[in-house]
Order: sequence, then structure tokens, then C-alpha cells
Amino acid sequence: MHDYCSQAARNLAAVRQQQPLIHNITNLVVMNVTANALLAAGASPVMAHSTEEVEEMVSLARALVLNIGTLTSDWVAAMIKAARRANTLERPVVLDPVGAGATTLRTRAARQILDAATITVIRGNASEIMALDQGTATTRGVDSVHGVADAAASAAALSKRVGAVVAVTGATDLVTDGTREVRVANGHPLMGRITGSGCSATALIAAFSAVDPDPLSATATALAFFGLAGEQAGTVAAAPGSFQVALLDALYTLSPEALQEGSRFA
Amino acid sequence: MHDYCSQAARNLAAVRQQQPLIHNITNLVVMNVTANALLAAGASPVMAHSTEEVEEMVSLARALVLNIGTLTSDWVAAMIKAARRANTLERPVVLDPVGAGATTLRTRAARQILDAATITVIRGNASEIMALDQGTATTRGVDSVHGVADAAASAAALSKRVGAVVAVTGATDLVTDGTREVRVANGHPLMGRITGSGCSATALIAAFSAVDPDPLSATATALAFFGLAGEQAGTVAAAPGSFQVALLDALYTLSPEALQEGSRFA
Amino acid sequence: MHDYCSQAARNLAAVRQQQPLIHNITNLVVMNVTANALLAAGASPVMAHSTEEVEEMVSLARALVLNIGTLTSDWVAAMIKAARRANTLERPVVLDPVGAGATTLRTRAARQILDAATITVIRGNASEIMALDQGTATTRGVDSVHGVADAAASAAALSKRVGAVVAVTGATDLVTDGTREVRVANGHPLMGRITGSGCSATALIAAFSAVDPDPLSATATALAFFGLAGEQAGTVAAAPGSFQVALLDALYTLSPEALQEGSRFA
Repeated sequence: MHDYCSQAARNLAAVRQQQPLIHNITNLVVMNVTANALLAAGASPVMAHSTEEVEEMVSLARALVLNIGTLTSDWVAAMIKAARRANTLERPVVLDPVGAGATTLRTRAARQILDAATITVIRGNASEIMALDQGTATTRGVDSVHGVADAAASAAALSKRVGAVVAVTGATDLVTDGTREVRVANGHPLMGRITGSGCSATALIAAFSAVDPDPLSATATALAFFGLAGEQAGTVAAAPGSFQVALLDALYTLSPEALQEGSRFA
Repeated sequence: MHDYCSQAARNLAAVRQQQPLIHNITNLVVMNVTANALLAAGASPVMAHSTEEVEEMVSLARALVLNIGTLTSDWVAAMIKAARRANTLERPVVLDPVGAGATTLRTRAARQILDAATITVIRGNASEIMALDQGTATTRGVDSVHGVADAAASAAALSKRVGAVVAVTGATDLVTDGTREVRVANGHPLMGRITGSGCSATALIAAFSAVDPDPLSATATALAFFGLAGEQAGTVAAAPGSFQVALLDALYTLSPEALQEGSRFA
Repeated sequence: MHDYCSQAARNLAAVRQQQPLIHNITNLVVMNVTANALLAAGASPVMAHSTEEVEEMVSLARALVLNIGTLTSDWVAAMIKAARRANTLERPVVLDPVGAGATTLRTRAARQILDAATITVIRGNASEIMALDQGTATTRGVDSVHGVADAAASAAALSKRVGAVVAVTGATDLVTDGTREVRVANGHPLMGRITGSGCSATALIAAFSAVDPDPLSATATALAFFGLAGEQAGTVAAAPGSFQVALLDALYTLSPEALQEGSRFA
């Protein structure tokens, strides 16, 4: 797995050097948090959701994030429009199916997006990925009621069916393209006590996908980066307020060398 | 008042143990802040405002927050739909009438909600509560132009009229169910210099209401918890940026025992 | 330039003493951040964007902020309605043309607003100001691809054409009313690594405009205040998470005397 460690370092260096513009159509809770995560990591975020401008905006960007938290129907239309344009331009599209399985609207929206456009990477928690695969699992609000291992079969099946890399995040993250599978062991328990940490992971996957043409490696290395930043934050903070601050700091200060050293793939 | 002190400790322990899902239909300014406050306290937040999904979402939740800041008409419809479902399911509903009295839209929306559904707790500042009672008081934007004492009669009248516990927060908070009255003396002046502290108090009242069947005691103890966390933050921070961080930390680290010790009811 | 230094001190003292209510119609990414910046500085923020209430809300306020990030068409209508009422009431209106030049929607919206109402101050980065002047410059998402000096001619031309003070912010800020020109050298590089710093500058310009009848001096002194707060934050924080916290702290703790001392105009 030494392979992914050095790729992680190369990707982080490339994000910082190229500062790729990442177009986010994301939820109202995390807009600020994910913009700051992208900026701290070295990327350049833009948020735009009007159907009148998403095609133009995505054409300026190097990757697109679709996040279905705090969803209404008009946002789904904008997401599909943006994703189709990104497909035409061959830019990666990363989908975060927040709350899929919790409500019909969310599950249906995620499926509509998957039907209407080619998605490069899907990142969710175990319940969300199982809901997308089986259409039956129950999500408790936006928190998973399942462990990552429970979702391994669903992740592989979903990946094969829609042709996307699927990442299930949790204590240990699982990333699969239906054939290959990588596990990422980086992370810290306090990441579950701040809002938007899953959404920030998704945004960072988009940033890494902008500089790494292999979506499996882009996804796994982005998750290692985010997880290691969390570990570093956990060495200086013991509660969510200061942890959040330290996490943003770590996304900025973590060097490619430290990432290569600290990434834990399996 | 020893009664409430030990109830505060029991409620906090129950929130941390049960991690109740709290459904928030809240304003755009504070979504992130209140989600983090709920997470730090031990609850599990979800934000959803589409009329297409609020009924499903609230049926997964143990309490509902309605907050009318940054309001538009379509959100009122979603709030009423969610509140009615919560009523059917006998889940507590907490209303935060942000800016009632400042504009016709806000005052009318708060009254429409009170007419259309049964509200368990209303928490506002003095001007907002007076506006809901009298329909005449003026609110200066979202800040009160009255002290808590000015609103005592309005709080009692409003409580009797709509059958809800009413909390007026300020230097000393007043909580009434029209008959009983509790005052909570916890708090810190810097809470007025960060945005969303009233809204976070409302969200925490919902979390405590999810585990305590008496809305008067749930409200008073949640306010004591939030106020004591503010006091604790004030011992390590002297300006709003670091105070905000320390406040979130305190919501996470405050123990039930320390809450029992530090709560100040009258 | 001693003139502006003492004016900066007077304006800051006046904001803290008068706590002017500032009505913001602003984007979803920065609502929380700019509300907190205004509160820390001593002003009183309110966010309201419904066409049903913006006229009432702005009539309570001492200044209006229009910020076109995360725009949809219905928000433009609300902005114009609010701005016209502010014009009638002779309250200052500050426009932040976030992403003008990046998409047709944003460029067109900014121009519609400028056509429909009298704007007191426009604050943008170099690309945004050039886009408003020439209708041709390209903005890379919401980040400038030009330096402040590139936009000097556009700023002067735009100022003359629409009768507004125009501020171009960057390493050194340029403020012009078409005749007079002031440069503000305060600031810190980390301000570019947190989201919403431009938007916070705009909000503070509105707060200073509420207490200073000369929009050129209000704008320049607000930018000096914000820049100096950034410098102060940079002495205690070396990464974006902690910088953001320290910046809010500095907006609260900076004294009028320290501002007079530390402002750097040219």
C-alpha cells in the first residue's frame, strides 16, 4: 500500500499548487464549513445553486460536489443540470447522499441524480450507501445506524451498477470501484461530534479528484488526508469547538511528507 | 429549587445516553451553530425544511424545532406541516419566534403556527414574547428592546392563551406555564455578542424536552445548562471568537454533576 | 492622511456606542460569519430576504448590505425592493458583487441592482469590479484573477458612472469616489484563506456608513479596521481555523486608539 501513501502526498501537493476551483451545490448547514475546508486544504471553493448559472459555473470548475442535505426539489434540478454539463466537460462529479434512506425525497433525489448523470464518486455513511443499493435501509436522520462492514456488499454492488467509486466512511473507511478495495484507517472520534465532517470529506474528495485521474486513489488519499488532519487536531483539542478549529488548522499545515508518513491504508 | 438542579443533571445524562434525534426547521444564519450545539450536548440534529419531507423526517425525530428567522412563506407551510405531524405523534414542538414584532411577516407567521398546531414551548427575547402577546410591541431587528421583567405579564398571558410553556431569555431567564414560574440566573454577557445563542438555547430546550415529559422543567434545565456552559466559556475566553469555541467545548465537557452544582434557579 | 486615522477611531467608537442595526441580504455561505463580524464590532445584524418583509426590515435599519453570492432570481427582486426603500429613507446601501464576471446571472444581477437603485458603496475584488465596469473581465469563481492595480481605472470609471464609492480589495485596498482616492495598506495574507472575509469587509463598511455620512471615509476606515484586526489575528494565529477565531476576537477588542495608531492609509 506504499503506493497510495506517496500518491496522497503527490495529490496534496498538486491541490496546493494548482488550487483547483471546486463547484459545490451543497446543503445550507455546511456551506461555510466545506468552503473553509477546501480553502484550508489549498483549493478554491465556489457555491452556486441557481439553475440559471450552474452550467456556466461548473464550466469554470475542475470538479463538482452534489450534496443533498436540506434538499428541496428545485435544487435537484440544478444538480442534474450541473452534473450533465460536468459530464460533457469530463470533470469529476462527487455525490454525497446525505440522509438517503431517511426520507423518500432524499432517496429518490439521489437515485434521480444517479440515473440522469454519470457520477464519479459517491461518499456516504453505511446507512446511506445501503439505502442507495437496497432502497430499504433506514437512516436515522443523517447519522448511520450501521457499521462500515455492514455496507461492504452494498458498496460493491452500487459501484458496479452505477460505475462510480463508492466510499463508505466510518471508523475505518472503505473505498471500492467494484473490483479494487482500499481501506483507510485514519480518523478521530471527535469528527463525529462536529457537523459537516462527512460533507467536508466529500468536498476534499472532489479537490483530490481534480488533480488525480484515478477516482479510487483520489478518494482514498483524500480520506487519509482528512482523517490524518483529524488525528492531528485530536492531539491538541479534546472537545468539539476547539477540535473544529484545530481540524481546519491541520488541513492547512499538514505537509505532503507528513501525509505520506501518516496515511494508513489497508 | 433543589428539585430542578437534580432534574437538570438527570436530563443532561439522558440526552447523552439516548442521543435523541432533533428535527430542526431553522434559519439560515444559525443552522450550523445549532447543529453543533446539539451534537456537542450529545443529541443528534437533522435539518430538513422541504414540505415534501418534513412529515417523514419529524416522524423519525424525538422533538421538533421551529425557528422563524430568515423566513419566507414556503417555510411557514413546512413548519405547520411538521408541527401537526409532531402533534399527532405526541412529540414536543419548540417555537423560536425570531424577529416577531419586527415585521408583519414574522409576527403573522408565529401566530399562524400557534393557531395551526399545538406548541409545547415558546422561547424568545422580551420584545418577541410581548409582540406575540400584544401584537403591538416593536422589536429592533432581532434584538430585544425590553428587559425580561417587562415581559413577565405577557409571558404568563401568552402561556395561558396558547397552552405552551413560555421562556423569556435575557440576563435572568423567566420560564412559565401560566401557573408555575421558574427563573434561571445562569449565563454570561458574551452570549449576546455571538449570533445564534438564542437559537441554540431553543434547540437545547428541544433536546431536553425529548427526554423530560414536563416541558417547564425541560425548558428551565436546558436554559441552566446552556447558561452554565456560557459561564464556563467566560472563564477561558474574553472575546466572541474564542468564547464561541469555548462554549461548544463546555456543552460537551460539562458533567451532569457540575450542572447540578452550578444551576441557579429561583 | 492623519485625517482618516482619527476618523477611523471616531467611527469605531460611534459603532460601539450606537450599535446600528444593519440589514443584510447576503449569501448562504457567509450569513453566520458576517453576523458575527458585525456583532463583534459592536453593530447589530439582522438577516432577512423575503420580498414580503425586506421593506419593513430595512426601515428599522441604519444601513443595507446586498451580497449576490449563492444568488437566485427571487433574491434579486428582494434586493431591489429593499434598496429602493433604503433610497427613500436615505440610508446607505452597500453592494458586494460576489462572482460578477463569473456567470451571466451574477453580472446581470449586479447591473440590474445598479440600474434600479442608488448604491452608496460597491466593494469587490479586482475581477468583480472590472466585470461591472467592462462587462467582459473573467472572474475565476469568486476569486480574483487580477491585482488591485489592474482595476484602478475600472474603479474610477464605475464610480463616476453609477455615483457610488468603489472599493477594490486585495493586498492593498483602493477606495475611490471617482475624484478622491484612498489606499488602505492594512491586512493579512490569511484573510484570503478563510471564506467570507470579503463579505465581512462589506458588512463592516455598512456599519461604518451608518455612523459616517461620507461614504469614502466610511469605506476606507472600515477597511482599515478590518485589515488591522486581521494583522492582530496574524500575531496569534498561523493557520485559518485559529485565525478566524482570533479575527473575531480582534474585531471586539481593538480599541479606537489602537485603530487610530495602526491604520495605514495612503
